This record gives sequence, structure tokens and C-alpha cells, in this order.
Amino acid sequence: MLANKNDKKTDLEALGEFGLIDHLTKNFAPSQASTEKGVGDDGAVLHLKNRTVISTDFLIEGVHFDLSYMPLKHLGYKSVIVNLSDIYAMNAIATQILVSIAVSNRFPLEALEELYQGIALATKKYEVDLIGGDTSSSKTGMLISITALGEAKAEEIAYRAGARANDLLVVSGDLGAAYMGLQVLEREKEVFKVNPNNQPDLEPYSYIVERQLKPEARKDIVELLKKLEVKPTAMIDISDGLSSEILHLCKQSHVGCNLFEDKIPLDPTVIAACEEFKLDSTLVALSGGEDYELLFTINQKDFPKIKGNPNFTVIGHMTEAGEGAHLVTRGNSKIPLTAQGWNSFPS
Amino acid sequence: MLANKNDKKTDLEALGEFGLIDHLTKNFAPSQASTEKGVGDDGAVLHLKNRTVISTDFLIEGVHFDLSYMPLKHLGYKSVIVNLSDIYAMNAIATQILVSIAVSNRFPLEALEELYQGIALATKKYEVDLIGGDTSSSKTGMLISITALGEAKAEEIAYRAGARANDLLVVSGDLGAAYMGLQVLEREKEVFKVNPNNQPDLEPYSYIVERQLKPEARKDIVELLKKLEVKPTAMIDISDGLSSEILHLCKQSHVGCNLFEDKIPLDPTVIAACEEFKLDSTLVALSGGEDYELLFTINQKDFPKIKGNPNFTVIGHMTEAGEGAHLVTRGNSKIPLTAQGWNSFPS
Repeated sequence: MLANKNDKKTDLEALGEFGLIDHLTKNFAPSQASTEKGVGDDGAVLHLKNRTVISTDFLIEGVHFDLSYMPLKHLGYKSVIVNLSDIYAMNAIATQILVSIAVSNRFPLEALEELYQGIALATKKYEVDLIGGDTSSSKTGMLISITALGEAKAEEIAYRAGARANDLLVVSGDLGAAYMGLQVLEREKEVFKVNPNNQPDLEPYSYIVERQLKPEARKDIVELLKKLEVKPTAMIDISDGLSSEILHLCKQSHVGCNLFEDKIPLDPTVIAACEEFKLDSTLVALSGGEDYELLFTINQKDFPKIKGNPNFTVIGHMTEAGEGAHLVTRGNSKIPLTAQGWNSFPS
Repeated sequence: MLANKNDKKTDLEALGEFGLIDHLTKNFAPSQASTEKGVGDDGAVLHLKNRTVISTDFLIEGVHFDLSYMPLKHLGYKSVIVNLSDIYAMNAIATQILVSIAVSNRFPLEALEELYQGIALATKKYEVDLIGGDTSSSKTGMLISITALGEAKAEEIAYRAGARANDLLVVSGDLGAAYMGLQVLEREKEVFKVNPNNQPDLEPYSYIVERQLKPEARKDIVELLKKLEVKPTAMIDISDGLSSEILHLCKQSHVGCNLFEDKIPLDPTVIAACEEFKLDSTLVALSGGEDYELLFTINQKDFPKIKGNPNFTVIGHMTEAGEGAHLVTRGNSKIPLTAQGWNSFPS
């Protein structure tokens, strides 16, 4: 349904490895003051003040993305976003990225140009410099490896390990939409297999499909927290699902947690899609993943600073470690949280 | 011939993604003063003084390595080395690495443990911290993506662009051995296919096979140059072959070059293997690649400081750009240098 309709196709062999890097990165002029040398030498050179935060992620075709419904421009954009999200989750501001790609020879140059258009869009919006990377051929499909760097003052950095009992558990935005967007896209893919002439009407699902195909990272939340003078005691981004991330915070902070089912923020379109797909919306929020929202804990004294702010929802509070991590259901029963986040080694 | 003879095989599914990272990295305690937080959060946190140098490389099974003769421990070691080499090529000292791996389910946990033993060996020898990475499943084979960081003072960094006409062109170590080691291993692989009981005698080739399977990065050269108070005007590491690297220096420095064939340093075992394989040793040195030696230019006034030092060979000098880049043969004819370095997109 979303086949690549490139008319012009240029073989990668025609360019060679160095020509390819030059070609794809020629429009990425560094704009960050901390970038002294970007692409084009054995290494990039940075002048980072304060503390450097660094994170890296693999994105592999057939494991992390499906090109039958993921346009390459969106893939480029999303690949950058998922990495920047890790930097913001440390309460830092992203400054640079390195992008490595490996592709089989089924991809013409024009496909990589589309991918890099999406990468360029993300670097512009989030004000990060593309400073390096590697290109290679692959035996099958497309592989993307991105490393993101950011800066923060030492005292600003929010680790997973800082949550204390009685801290409030807060989440930005709403949850479960990216997962439901994926369900819609997977269903349309099956329909397309049966009838390639069928034109899917994705209009009613535009919010959830966009959350899957073109997620955003919450740089705005990091900036807002700074403005509100709220320093999260612990923070993590929601890539694998709320439940899995809460358990990370609990484990590393040596605390327990009560999460209240009725507080979990859900968009109405997520609730509608869950009904249509006969899925439990709480389970979708807990285990869906790919929301790239920020999950953090704050000291109760900071509550007045965020109270009533539509960007934040208080969804629970931390407890002593011995109490464990629980979901308090709408029916007021307590059930233990389990990590049902996405497992990249499914059996 | 070098089949994996693990008796014990643990499925990766049994551990899950987070368990796998924890398991593989549990013995990598940070030792660098600049590492404030290593593996275990959304990002690592570094306190890098001076300038940060950063570089990243993909290593892909079937493209960059062949597990039929590359033991996993060696692969882990070499993967780190090729990345550190880029940091040293900037005249910086490597401090940290991030290692991402993706593997198909044909690899048991014990195979990854072997890989990480090699990675650990390299991090220990070169005094770098493993501070992060990602693990994933792959559709085919093994993929490794490493990002290396290093530190240097701004005035110490050697770019590719700093060479001037009349600078001397200098190389560390000797060239062509890694490529000839690969020829021996490829030949033995073919022999093994025909007769699996044949025991190869690699003893006469131990130097060149080791240069292929367990190369070293020239941290010692960076330290030695500092001790000798020689600041290279330009520097690059030899990963793709001498010829290709010289052309990079010429292009980015806007200079030409005369390279003298009779000055190219060759180990006697390389010359012997070239005779056996009926290959021209000069061509092997020019195009072989994977030597991970440092190629640099120095101002002529610094020549007395390196003169007679067995670590260095002056192999030519830079010229005005208009003169082009040439090989001056033993017969005293000048032939233009062409990049015949390894192309990762062969036609």
C-alpha cells in the first residue's frame, strides 16, 4: 500500500562508500556551538561543556520496523527521535548525533536520500548536528545505528536511581497510541495482501498512526520542567511500555510503586481503537511501548508547580521497596506489575 | 576448521533483552575518571575535559568478517581496535566505547560471552570504559556497531586537512600484512571445504594471520609522538589501504604527494607470502587495508626528532596540489595514485 514509487534509481555501487557519505551528508552543516568538526575526518571533534550524556540504539528491518508501511522519510525521522528521547530522559538537551546505515543492494540511492530527508527534518526540529557515522552494504535489509549526545549540568541530570518513597510518579502526554497505530497498520497490511486495490481509510486513526510513524521526543518537557524549576528525582523514557519502565525505576531506585489505573492518560482515539480491536486499554498503555513520553518522579513539595498543567499526569506514587510495584485497579484491587514490555528476543 | 565447539548452549530467549545486557556487561566496571555513569541508564554520563573526539563503525557478518575463520573472541577484540584506531588517528587518547550487537538466534549466550571476552581484553589493554550499547535480535547473522570516544587538547588534534607542501609523509609499523593474512585464511577455508580433516599449518604465517585476526591500534604512536614533541600536521589511520588514505590527506589538505615505492615498509613474511600468492607487494601495501597503522605528515623541521626511530618510516613528501599524487616506482617512473582501497559496495 505504501510501495516506494521512485522513478529514478541510482545504484549505490556507482557512488562507492566515500561518495555515498559525502552525498548523503552534504546538506548537514553543523549549527551547534559545541561542534568543532563534523563529518569528514577519522572522528568528529566536540567542545562539550558541563556533562556529556550519550546513548545508542539499533534499528533493524524486520525487527524494529517494517518498510511495507513505514515510509523511509518517517523511518529516518523516527530513528533520530528514539535516540534523542534517551538524552531527554536524562534531563539533558541533545546536541549531536552519529548515524550509521547498512543497506542491501535492493535500495537505490534515492531511497537513502528519502531516509536522510527524514533525518534532516529531525535534526533541524530538535536542533542537533549530524556529526558522523558509517555506511556499509548489508546482506539483508536495512540496519540503522544511531548514537546521540547531549549536554547538562551535573546537578541537572536525572538518573533512574533517584526516586524515593512518597515521590509522585508523573508521565507526560498520553500512552498506548503508538501501539494502537501499529495494530491499525498491521491490519491494513493484511488487507492489502488480500486485495492490493483496496484503499485504506486511515483518517479516523490519524492520531494513533502518526504516533507510530512519526513520534516526537519530549525536549519541550525537559525545557518546561527547567522553567517550572522542577528537578525530577528519577526519569526514564517510555520505549518498552509503562509497566517495564516503572519496574526499571523501582529496581534502580530501590523503591516500590502504586500505579493507579484510573489515572493513566489515554487519548479518546486510543480508547475507541482498543474497543474496535477488543484490547484492554490499560494493558495497551502498560505494555504497548514506543510512546516516547517521559516518566519521572518528583518530590511531593514540587507538586504545586505541576498541578493542573495539561502536559503532566500524576499516575501514582513511590513506596518503600518492601511494598513492591502494583497496579491499583479501578475496582481498587492491587495486582503486581510485571514487565510485559516489548522483548526483542521473543521465543 | 575453526568451528565453535561450545558444549553448553544457552538460548538468548531465556535471558531477554535486559538480562542479556546486564549479563554481558556485568564485569565491565568503569575505570576512567571521565566516566561518571556507565551502562544502566537511558544514557551514560561523561565528564570530558578539553575536546571530545568521537567516531563510529559498523561491522557486519559476511561483509566485514567471516566467522568460519574469525574466532568470536578475536572478533570482539578487533571490533574495538578498529574504532579506537580512528580516535588515535585524531592524535587523541581513547577513553570510552559503546558496543551494540544484533544476533540471529543461531548464536547461543556462550558465543556472545566469547565475543565480550575479546571486547573486555581490548578495553583493558587500551584503558577504555565500556559505557553503553544496545542488544537486539537480527534476521541474519551478527552485526556490531561501536562508537568510540576520546580526549585531546584542542591544539593536539591532528585533522586530515593540515598537511602542507614539503611536509614529510610518515607511516608507523609495516603494511600489507593484514591483507596477506586474509589471503592465507581464505585459502585454508577453501581447502577445509574440500577436506575437513586437513589440518592447516598456519605457523609460517603467524605474523600476517595475527595482523588480520588480532590487529592492534597505535595508541603507543600517539604517546610516542607526544614524548618526542612532534605534532603531526595531518593524520589518518590505514583502514582501507595506503593509497586511499594518502588521497584523503591530499584532497582534504589541498596538496599533492610523492610516495616512494622503495620506502614502503614491508615485513619479510609479507614479501614471502606475496611471492607465494603471486601478488605484487607494492599493490598489496597500497590497496590491502586493515593495517590500522597511522599515516601522518610532519613539518621537515621535526625530521630529526623521528630520524632513525624504528617505529617510523618516511615514505614520501607532500607537494603543491597542482602536482597531483604519485607513486615514484623503483624504476623511477611516476604513476598517479588511485584509490583502490576496499569498497564496501563492490559491483
